[in-house]
Order: sequence, then structure tokens, then C-alpha cells
Amino acid sequence: MIKVGIIGAGRIGRVHSESITKYVKGAEIKAISDVRVTDELKQWTKGMGIPHVYEDYKHILQDPEIDAVLVCSSTNTHAPISIEAARAGKHIFCEKPVDADVNRIKEVLAEVEKAGVKFQVGFNRRFDHNFKAIKTRVENGDIGEPHLIRVTSRDPDAPPIEYVKVSGGMFFDMTIHDFDMIRYLSGSEVVEVYAAGGVLVNPEIGKAGDIDTAVITLKLANGAIGVIDNSRKAVYGYDQRAEVFGSKGAIQTRNDTDSTAVYSCEAGVIAEKPKYFFLERYMQSFADEMACFVDSVVNDKPTLVNGNDGLQPVLIALAAKRSLDEGRPVKLAEIA
Amino acid sequence: MIKVGIIGAGRIGRVHSESITKYVKGAEIKAISDVRVTDELKQWTKGMGIPHVYEDYKHILQDPEIDAVLVCSSTNTHAPISIEAARAGKHIFCEKPVDADVNRIKEVLAEVEKAGVKFQVGFNRRFDHNFKAIKTRVENGDIGEPHLIRVTSRDPDAPPIEYVKVSGGMFFDMTIHDFDMIRYLSGSEVVEVYAAGGVLVNPEIGKAGDIDTAVITLKLANGAIGVIDNSRKAVYGYDQRAEVFGSKGAIQTRNDTDSTAVYSCEAGVIAEKPKYFFLERYMQSFADEMACFVDSVVNDKPTLVNGNDGLQPVLIALAAKRSLDEGRPVKLAEIA
Amino acid sequence: MIKVGIIGAGRIGRVHSESITKYVKGAEIKAISDVRVTDELKQWTKGMGIPHVYEDYKHILQDPEIDAVLVCSSTNTHAPISIEAARAGKHIFCEKPVDADVNRIKEVLAEVEKAGVKFQVGFNRRFDHNFKAIKTRVENGDIGEPHLIRVTSRDPDAPPIEYVKVSGGMFFDMTIHDFDMIRYLSGSEVVEVYAAGGVLVNPEIGKAGDIDTAVITLKLANGAIGVIDNSRKAVYGYDQRAEVFGSKGAIQTRNDTDSTAVYSCEAGVIAEKPKYFFLERYMQSFADEMACFVDSVVNDKPTLVNGNDGLQPVLIALAAKRSLDEGRPVKLAEIA
Amino acid sequence: MIKVGIIGAGRIGRVHSESITKYVKGAEIKAISDVRVTDELKQWTKGMGIPHVYEDYKHILQDPEIDAVLVCSSTNTHAPISIEAARAGKHIFCEKPVDADVNRIKEVLAEVEKAGVKFQVGFNRRFDHNFKAIKTRVENGDIGEPHLIRVTSRDPDAPPIEYVKVSGGMFFDMTIHDFDMIRYLSGSEVVEVYAAGGVLVNPEIGKAGDIDTAVITLKLANGAIGVIDNSRKAVYGYDQRAEVFGSKGAIQTRNDTDSTAVYSCEAGVIAEKPKYFFLERYMQSFADEMACFVDSVVNDKPTLVNGNDGLQPVLIALAAKRSLDEGRPVKLAEIA
Repeated sequence: MIKVGIIGAGRIGRVHSESITKYVKGAEIKAISDVRVTDELKQWTKGMGIPHVYEDYKHILQDPEIDAVLVCSSTNTHAPISIEAARAGKHIFCEKPVDADVNRIKEVLAEVEKAGVKFQVGFNRRFDHNFKAIKTRVENGDIGEPHLIRVTSRDPDAPPIEYVKVSGGMFFDMTIHDFDMIRYLSGSEVVEVYAAGGVLVNPEIGKAGDIDTAVITLKLANGAIGVIDNSRKAVYGYDQRAEVFGSKGAIQTRNDTDSTAVYSCEAGVIAEKPKYFFLERYMQSFADEMACFVDSVVNDKPTLVNGNDGLQPVLIALAAKRSLDEGRPVKLAEIA
Repeated sequence: MIKVGIIGAGRIGRVHSESITKYVKGAEIKAISDVRVTDELKQWTKGMGIPHVYEDYKHILQDPEIDAVLVCSSTNTHAPISIEAARAGKHIFCEKPVDADVNRIKEVLAEVEKAGVKFQVGFNRRFDHNFKAIKTRVENGDIGEPHLIRVTSRDPDAPPIEYVKVSGGMFFDMTIHDFDMIRYLSGSEVVEVYAAGGVLVNPEIGKAGDIDTAVITLKLANGAIGVIDNSRKAVYGYDQRAEVFGSKGAIQTRNDTDSTAVYSCEAGVIAEKPKYFFLERYMQSFADEMACFVDSVVNDKPTLVNGNDGLQPVLIALAAKRSLDEGRPVKLAEIA
Repeated sequence: MIKVGIIGAGRIGRVHSESITKYVKGAEIKAISDVRVTDELKQWTKGMGIPHVYEDYKHILQDPEIDAVLVCSSTNTHAPISIEAARAGKHIFCEKPVDADVNRIKEVLAEVEKAGVKFQVGFNRRFDHNFKAIKTRVENGDIGEPHLIRVTSRDPDAPPIEYVKVSGGMFFDMTIHDFDMIRYLSGSEVVEVYAAGGVLVNPEIGKAGDIDTAVITLKLANGAIGVIDNSRKAVYGYDQRAEVFGSKGAIQTRNDTDSTAVYSCEAGVIAEKPKYFFLERYMQSFADEMACFVDSVVNDKPTLVNGNDGLQPVLIALAAKRSLDEGRPVKLAEIA
Repeated sequence: MIKVGIIGAGRIGRVHSESITKYVKGAEIKAISDVRVTDELKQWTKGMGIPHVYEDYKHILQDPEIDAVLVCSSTNTHAPISIEAARAGKHIFCEKPVDADVNRIKEVLAEVEKAGVKFQVGFNRRFDHNFKAIKTRVENGDIGEPHLIRVTSRDPDAPPIEYVKVSGGMFFDMTIHDFDMIRYLSGSEVVEVYAAGGVLVNPEIGKAGDIDTAVITLKLANGAIGVIDNSRKAVYGYDQRAEVFGSKGAIQTRNDTDSTAVYSCEAGVIAEKPKYFFLERYMQSFADEMACFVDSVVNDKPTLVNGNDGLQPVLIALAAKRSLDEGRPVKLAEIA
């Protein structure tokens, strides 16, 4: 049984807290920290049976009983806190993206290596039942050599414009998961990126310097071609599909729904919409990534989403952004 | 190239005419007859390139050039015309049901046998691509021993009440196809029938002495159990599905639609309704049964829907009717 | 926060323990009892954080701190323990079937009423996401008047023959859930039952006096017709589907699968098999029925599966058994 | 009733002949020509009831009774024969592509305009039931503003290497249909193209100077983004799907199959593969494009696939080829 400290008590910090409490055998939460410890947070912490709540995350890093930390604070603090945690000898689960700056990510990875602690990045979708089913077929060789990898990733609604402004842009905030998925499903590295994008959902997003719709083509080291299509707003709900096509066949996933019910009436044959958004769709994957992280720590296994898995999608996002800005394909070698 | 005469120029007679003209190599229509030769019919016959149109079908039977006749006249004339046609040495395609009277059917079959002519009954659904796909799996042994055979058969709308009154009842008019389908898919004979039915669609149907909704259970000679559910009115369209379940697996068919398009919007994920009714759904099967009949004649093969296939569903329908009337399961041996 | 005692630490007792511990806010387990308290059970109890484990369930009934009990012991003890529990003033969650004897069920219900305690029966499938989706459409009036209710319920494999011998027969052990489902989905009561059954899976089941395959037709008070098809062995997995068809449309559910992945290869287009068996398929519904029971107790609401819901399926099962034995439809009025 | 001459008696010429004979009211074939009039062709022509067969297509152009010609000869003759036909006052159905040279296409269009004859290009997929269903939703406004248009187009097997060498390259031979489809479904014009491609199926194709796998991104005048993925070899059959996603929803089509049958067994839940190749999948669309062409001629309507529809996909293919060669996005304005 390991003891865990959670840094950042926002939405994702609480999701992980619930996962550990309910699903993960072998771990218990000793403390949580947040820059603002409100009464509501104290209440919630008590209800969860978490013994300590701090304003300063350093209390967590200094607690010798705590084996591992979850870095769920704001994005710009992921790197410095991870470095501190590594130096304190804590195993680290770090939310994505590790940082928008490649050099800072490399610093984190160097410190993690020096400290010999576990480091897992929060690309939870790798733990989703559908994408795992694709991955399993690919690894079993049922697809043969992969030729095409397609990811459709569309949000049910655009975030508030204030969020868009600080989000780092769609590629860092949203597509970063899809970049990881292309690597995960293909088993290969991205070498070149071409991004076509536009502002079709909401002109305010354009005014904020971002885009809301994109098609990104990715050339992979193994010769396969990846393609992602994104939209910030699919009125029918969260659209999360993928396909790998290869020399021996193809595998595709559809969206999850609340039920399999199909209603036939004069208007048509009506199935349910996709599960609404990431909390509904990916809840189990959040739990499973926690279980996997704890397992890595307890049984001294490599993490399934390691430091390089944190670095590569950021490189791809930077290449995609440059491609969009300059209207040309960009090699990752230009970025790194 | 054989020459065909068509007796009865109603809807089904014209469907068969078009099939022969468009799809069936090896046959041409020399004449058509109808009790009422209207100007419209003359026009239609001309447009189809059919040389002769008669009021009296006997002209067709007397024409020595005509090899085969299609009996598409009103149900009560199927048996006597078939008998005459057999005696005239014509091969016979007879619309279903052959007759509602078992003895008259037996007379027809005796005459057919004596004359040595081909005789095929119009159970076109055996030629439908979906049901053939089931049959193929069953025959290949992919299902193993059949245990359960399910047929869902629901019309898009009840016929006019005047038609209901002369239809012979739902079991003879509508379910007769499903009785044939149970025999066809199972490869076994029905030995006992239990029918539960009601008037749920339109009370006028009840006043006319008929039902509009039914579930019929059929015990088969091989131990398997068949079950049919019927409704005269499915507001979403013509619902025609089947399933065979056995020791090695199951096979089911869904409805055909005009396209595979699925529309996702705020209201849901909407597919198309089933093809509207039997002409839309079964058009190709009508053509294929004709091609098969012509092939039987030209190449002297047994017909795929023979005399006994005409007889058995009538026995089952009679048993179902008695079951409904008496509220008990009825053995076919009680009927024959 | 209520305190719960669990009587019976077999598979289903443990399923409910896990549900309460993981999912159900507002309840904690104070004690569990089993006729055999093994070391393994002690270990398991400790791991679950359950303070007490007894051989004698009476310790649970006598504990004044315990508000509610779950009766998860062997079927023949459901009724007497429920009666004792009611007399002890405990709220009761009783596994299905309450008893195979109608009079004993009625005794239980009388004691429950006298004691004024909550009583919920373990028909967990009512809490399944798919069947709830059907129910919601029916209650919203989207189906109109129900005409046909179909339930397909097939196990992935027959139970051991020793179990078959003490199971009470397929109708009591397996179909009982489907009888409940017909009532639940239709919102009406069964008035007459006709069962056709056979031994097609394993002749040993026949030697044990049971059947393994059945089609059961149920006439409902509202005029609708229900039909259930059962098999003890579907080689492709646990087949659990339902459909309600009515004047305004139909709603059907498909099976749940581990993922939505579809693999296309030379052999065909291959989707996943249904989830293997009831623990896989219905796990969430077990949790949800517990949450609902606890909510009924805590907030003094009527239970969603009440005493009559425990009684009716037993009456239907008795009628089905008599129908099978006597080869005729049997009215529930003959049984009660 | 118009009279038609067919120039070129290869596969597609015969497909159109059968369509006109079987499905198209209002047209009959008077003559067919081919550079090689074999005994087999004479036999086939006789069987089809076509009165004349010539080696020299000029006999067709000189026949004053012939109203319209179908140009089904080899690609490099499409333009000169179309020009001759226009000058002869014949209405023209021209197979795709009109030519690989933009200026020659423009010459054809100029002659067609001068002659005032109908001109339809053989983009038969516009007449496919699935793509028409998408188009209808788009035109009805059900999708709102289109944002993303996706076309998946994969052949079941690569053509012989000898064919590859003379095919003009994958973009001209295969993707040309998809370029047309993007224009058709979006209702907008392509302004820029980026093509990523590779040789993943067969290295011989690479040696012949072509590719066999591609992802092509297309920027459209209305701001939407199109994306096509192509492979020369999908082992599971002809994969032909499309999706339009917009502000109000999305519509997608799946592949057509020979039946809706789904087989459940120990190995999985197995549906049929897509219809094998274009003749199987698109047969009805070939018939429907003919009916539409004849209707344009008979009733003096604009053709549904006009001269510009013949020109634009060639421009896009040229841009795609240049993009692939130069590794950058290419504007159509650079080509025209």
C-alpha cells in the first residue's frame, strides 16, 4: 500500500482522487494541496477521507510517508513541481502537457532520470477500452503493416473564450491527445506535420488568435500516414473515433453511448448520441491510468506513458502550429 | 428461350412481367390475360412489348408456343387454373397461397405430377438476399443444430378494411410467408402450432373477424422451436427480420434501407427507416424467383419452391387459425 | 449514513458488498454472515473493511445499529430470514426468487407490511442502462400503446448438472428475470402463459428433469403479447436483448460489448462478442440497485422493486411450468 | 425515344449498354464501335439486340438518326472524339477523366458550348444512393455550414503493374472520383491541395513512378476542409465511405454489403465484407447516370455532371501531383 499526495484540487485532481479511493487497490491518498483551500474543498476532502489538505504543495513533497505525487496543478507549474518532486524522491504522475517548452520538458526528464523515480504522463485515452482494442489488434499483427491511422476528435462545445485565450491554442489543449493517440496506435514516431485549420465555429476564437477546426496530416517514421480531424463543436456530442488500416485489415472504433437502445418511429431509426464529454466518455480510463501508475510504483515496472511520451506530442503540436502559421509541412527535426 | 403467358395483370402479374423483361434471360412474354382488359392495360402491354393481351386466359393455355404460365389471378382461381394449365401441359408458376382448401391443393399437386410439368409457388422471400444468407449459413453447418428460429414480420400499414374482409385472414394473407420462412430456414417441418393474437391496431379489423397482431409458436420435427411475431402496422415501415440460433452460433438479419447514411444531430443519431413495403424490399427477390423458375423449365431442374412447399404453409395457417379460435396448441396432424 | 448487514457471503453477497463499498454513498457494511466462515472469507472481509463476520445471521438481526439487511443466502432461506428480519425491524433487500412457494411469499409480504419496513427484490436488470432506456421511452409514450414485448435471454453456457438439479428448474432460475422484465417493460400484468420447451443443449439436463431451450408466450392484461426466448447455451456469449413494439414505434436494445471496435479483414467484418455473463454485463446494475435500495431506506421512499414484483414472476414461472407439463396455455388465475 | 451510339466496347461501354437496355426508358442503342471488332463482340452485340457494330466510330458520328454518343474509348481519345461529336451535333456522355491536359478539356468545353449539345461526365458516384443521401441532407441545410468533408476510398486490390504504368497515376485514375465527391458533397470549389503519399502496398508501383497510399487535404472556397484517404489495396474489399460534418450535425455513410446478415459464433460477431469492387457497388449508379443523361437530352435539361465538373477534378489531380512531388501545398490557381 503506497501513500499518494495530490497537487491541485481542480476537476482533474478530484477525478484522480475518486479513482484512487474507489478503484485502485494498493494506494491511499494522504494529502491534497491547492493554491486556494476553500471551505468547499475542506468539506470535499473530509468526505473523501483524505487526512490532510494544504495550501502549499511543499508540505506534500516534504512528507516522507508520501511515495508518489500527482501533479494536477495549472499547466505552467507542471514542469517546476515535477522537478522538485523528482528531487524529493517522489514518483510522479504528471498531467498533460508537461510543458509547452521543449527544453523545460527535457529538464524534467533529466531530473526524473537522475532521481530514478517513476514518471507517467496523463494521456488517459491510452487506457480507454476502445483504443486499447485497436492497439491490441495492431500489436497482435492482425492489421499487418499500418498504412493509415485516422483519429476523429471533436468536442461537444467550444470552451469559454477566456479559457481559449490561456489554453495555449487548440493543438496544445485538445489535439495533444490525438497526437499521442497517433503515436500510440501506430507504434511509430511522427517525422513531419501539415496542418490545415480554420475558424468555422466561432469568430471570437479567431480573434483570440486560435482556430476551432483542423485537419492535420502526419508522416510517420514507418512510412504510414496519420490524419486527425478536429472540431471544437460537434452538436451531437463528443465524437471520439479512430481507425488503423494496414496490409492485413483495418480496425475502427465507434463512439460510446449511454445505452444500445435504438428507437424506430415515423421520423427514422434513432440511436443515442455519443457520451457527452470527456468525463463521461473517459471516466474508466482515468481510473485505469491511476491503477497502472500505482502498479508501476508498487511493483517497480516501467510506466506505460513515459517521459518521451510526454515530450513527443509537444514537439508535434509545435510543428503543427508552425505548419499552420507558415502554410507548409514542417519536420519535427526543425523543432527539436 | 421459352415463351411465357401471364394470367392476371394486377400488381403482382406486372411485377413478374417487368422481372422477365428486364432480368430474366431465357424467357419472353408472349401473352397476358386479365378479366378486365382496360385501355390502360393495353397501353401498358404495348409499352412492355408483350404481343398479346386477352380477356380469357384459355387463349394462353391453348397457345402451343407458350411453355409456361404464371398464375397471378385472384386467389380462389389459383387452383382451378393451375389444374387446367397442368392438363394443357404448361409449366406453372403459381402465386401464394395455392388455395385455402387443403384438398384442392392436393388435387393441383396430383394433376401437376400426372402432367409432369414444373410447379413453383410464389414464396419470393426465399430468394431475398438476407434470408438466403441465413439459409446458406444453416446449410453450411455454421449454426450447428438449429434450436430457435425467429421471424419478425410487420407491415407498414393495415390494408383497407374491404381487403381484410376478403383476405382469408391475417394468417393466410400475411403470415403465410412467415410460415414458409420458418420451414425454409429450419429445414424442418412444423408439427404443432400455438397462436396468440389480438386486435390492437384497428378495432374495425376485429369487427371484420380478423386479428392484426400475433405471436405464433411452432414446434418443429427436429425439436427446434419457431416463433413469429406479426403486426399489421409498424409506423416506422416494413419490418422483416429473422434469426436462426443453434448449437454453434446464431445468424440474424436486419432490415434493408434506402441508404446506409446516418445523420448525427442534437436530436440523436438517425438512420433510415426500413424500405417501405414489399415491392421496395423484395423487388430483387421477385426477379430472382422468376429467373429460377425459368431456369427450372429450361434446364429441367426441380423447382426451388415445390408443391409441398405450397401445401405446408396452408396447413400451418389452418392450425394457427384453429389454435387462435380454441385457445390451445394444435397439431398439424389434426388438420391434414 | 445507514448500517447494513449482509446475510450470505457467496458470489452475489460479495457483489453487493463491493457495490456498497465502492459506489453507494450513504451506507456502510457493519457485518456479514455465512454458514461457513472460512479463513478465505475472514481475509476477504478484512480486506473489504467490514468489521464483523458471523456464522449465525441472527447476530446481524439482533444488532440494533444495523438498519437494513441483504438476504443473499440460499434460495430456500430467503423467506424465513426475510420474515425474521421484518420482525426485527430491519429493512430488507431480498435476492430473487423470494421463494418458489406462493404462500410463503405472501407470508413474507404480510410480515413486511406489518413491520412497515422497506422490501426490495433483487431484479437487478431493471437497473440496467439498456432496459432503463426502453422503459423511459415506454413511460414517455414514445412507443404509444405496447403491442409486442420481446425478450431474448440466453446464457453463455449451461450450469453444472449438479446445479441444474437443485436450481428449481430453468423457469425459476433463469427465466424469472425475463418474466420480471416483461412486466417491467410493458407496465402490465401477465394473465396467461404458454411455454414451449425442449432439451436441445444437453441431454443430461433432460435427465435431471429440466429443459434448456424455451419460447414462452405471455398474454398481458393490457392486450399486449409478450414473448421470451431462452437458451442455456449461446456459444457467442450472454445474449440479452429486448424490444417493445407499439402503436407509435418500437425500441430495441442490443448486447453490450467490451469495446466498439470492428475489425475488417479477409474473413469478414468482425465485432466483439457480447460481454461474457451476468457479472460482466450487469455489474453496474447491481451497484445501482443497491444505491436505490439505500436511497429508499434513507429517504423513506417506496422501493422500485417491491413485494408484488417479487410475487408475480413466481406465479408466472409456476404457470409456465404447468403449461410445459400439460401442453396448454395456463392462466395465472389457475395458480394464485 | 432517342437513339444512342456507344464508342468503345470495353467494360464500361458494356456496362452502359446494359443499363440503357434494361433500365433506361426513352433510349435505345443503335450502334456500338470498337477499334477491335472481335467475334466475341459481334456475338455480345447481337445478344444485346444492338443493330450495328463498327470498327470506326465515325460511322456513329455520321449517322443522322443517332442523337447522342457515349465516349467510352481509351482516355487519350476522350477529348478528340468529344470534339468531333460536338461538331457532328451529337449530345455527349464522356467517361472520366475528359483528359489529363487542362487546355484540351477547355477546348472540348468550348466546342460543346458552340454546338449547343449536352455534355455529361461519367462521375457515376454522384448517383450512388449513399452519397445522394449525404447530398440531400447537405442541400436541405440539415448539416448547417459544412466544416469537414471526409472521403475514404480504398480499392480491394491494386491493378496490374502494366495498367499502373499507363493509368496516369493514382490521382488521375482513382482519386479523381474522390476529388469530384469532395466538390459534390461540399457544394464548394477546391482552392488548395496538400498530398501526402507513399508506396506501402507494392514496391513495383513505386518503381512504375506511382504511389499506392495517400492522404490528401483540400481547402475549399467556403472555408471547409476536405480530406481523402486512399489505398490501392484493402484486403476486406472496396471501402467507400464519406462524411460531411457541419455546424448543425454530421452525416456519414457506411459500405454496402450483399446482405445485412450478422453471424455470431465463438470467433466473434461477423458481418459481411463490403461489396467487392466498383461494378458490384456502383452498378445502380451507372444505370442512374444513364437515365439522367437521357433525361437531359430528351427533356432539354442541364446535365447533372457538366463540363466544369469534368474540368475541376483534373485541376485538383494536377495540384495533388505537384504537391506530392514538391512536398508543399499547391493552390489550384497555380495550375489553371
